[in-house]
Amino acid sequence: MKRIESEQNASVKQWKKLYTRKEREKKNQFIIEGPHLVEEALTHSVPIAHLIIDEDFVIPHTWNAHELDPWIVPKKIMRLLSDTEHPQGVIAICRMAEDNLEITPHGKYLMLDGVQDPGNLGSIIRTADAFGLDGVILGQGTADLYNSKVLRSTQGSLFHLHVVKGDLASYMKECQSQNVPVIVSALEGALPLTETKEAGPFALVVGNEGSGVSEDVKAAADRLVYVPMHGAAESLNVTVATGILLYELQRKAK
Amino acid sequence: MKRIESEQNASVKQWKKLYTRKEREKKNQFIIEGPHLVEEALTHSVPIAHLIIDEDFVIPHTWNAHELDPWIVPKKIMRLLSDTEHPQGVIAICRMAEDNLEITPHGKYLMLDGVQDPGNLGSIIRTADAFGLDGVILGQGTADLYNSKVLRSTQGSLFHLHVVKGDLASYMKECQSQNVPVIVSALEGALPLTETKEAGPFALVVGNEGSGVSEDVKAAADRLVYVPMHGAAESLNVTVATGILLYELQRKAK
Repeated sequence: MKRIESEQNASVKQWKKLYTRKEREKKNQFIIEGPHLVEEALTHSVPIAHLIIDEDFVIPHTWNAHELDPWIVPKKIMRLLSDTEHPQGVIAICRMAEDNLEITPHGKYLMLDGVQDPGNLGSIIRTADAFGLDGVILGQGTADLYNSKVLRSTQGSLFHLHVVKGDLASYMKECQSQNVPVIVSALEGALPLTETKEAGPFALVVGNEGSGVSEDVKAAADRLVYVPMHGAAESLNVTVATGILLYELQRKAK
Repeated sequence: MKRIESEQNASVKQWKKLYTRKEREKKNQFIIEGPHLVEEALTHSVPIAHLIIDEDFVIPHTWNAHELDPWIVPKKIMRLLSDTEHPQGVIAICRMAEDNLEITPHGKYLMLDGVQDPGNLGSIIRTADAFGLDGVILGQGTADLYNSKVLRSTQGSLFHLHVVKGDLASYMKECQSQNVPVIVSALEGALPLTETKEAGPFALVVGNEGSGVSEDVKAAADRLVYVPMHGAAESLNVTVATGILLYELQRKAK
């Protein structure tokens, strides 16, 4: 039984710093919070460096199969470490996975070119997971995967799905060399999604909330597509558009 | 030229109160903020009771066709009235529209059974607008349309599209009496969306983020449908699911 009583404890101070991207990248660690995310991490063998629970937290039976040696802390320290208004009594410090995704000729991938909003990024990863993709690649300018709001919005999907940061140009080339067509969401010069013929593996690229996909990425695409709309709204939210694109690509791949 | 200098001004205090749902419903008024939303309101003839600008705000030329008699306020009052971190210099106090939607035999409608999150509600309204629906009905337990976060997320779509609060049971009956099929999003006992045959008017009902659509609503449905998924995520975000459902229903209606 390990206990921490003081808010001045060096580990507490260190863990708290993991809410900054700089510190996460320096330590290769990130924080997750709440029983649902921690259970998902345990189930999917995410390496947990530290498990921290408050005095009242009852460890679920299903966690007993894992080697747990939790730190027990008073509620005031849990509040200090938590990023939410109502801490749920459990936090884990996880180690980041290796940042490399192997592209295969039968794979289905999603690439994000500068999706900035953490809530959008989290929901997009959850959607990619729901549609059974093989990997998600976060290009430059995309929000940090380990931001606490992103982690919450994924609802644990990042533990089922291979999500990596990477250079989109290289990954696109790699896809094309494996005959995986690169399909890019765009408005101008694009084919309506309803008319696409792709019926197998794909790499779908979606872009920034305001400016869309960058010109370089569009120039390297095998096909530009858009979601046909009928109304007065100027565009769909990037998360909704991604959901519709993945639904249609997967429907045609059946 | 009308000016307000004091933060103690009675109108300023009154406008500020419109950030509470109670006050909005008492006065039948709501606040919108920023040049984009105000321009959308002007373009779509939303009745504006007061336009408030700060000393530096330059009224766009395109607004000159409208009769504007703005209040000019110092920046400190604009900050007081604003709900955002970086006020954009313009706010309008609008009058609410009448709360009644006429159902027609050729209409396409979306009904929300308790969508609670303001960001979800706003994005769903924007999506309904993008797909050219004829109206959105907000059932009991749904977030308030005039909440400032909802208004921001709609990006002005509520001014192009008829959005009303109402009793879902009555609206569903009205749809059925006009031969508009009521299609309800559900997981159990439902048909995969890919297999639906509806190819004309519809009323789609989606539910609460956690508990989905209520039993009463499901029992009254003409058809239950779900979005087929392939992966490990337990469900789609309600906004993404609504986007996919509307895309497919509109695709088949072509």
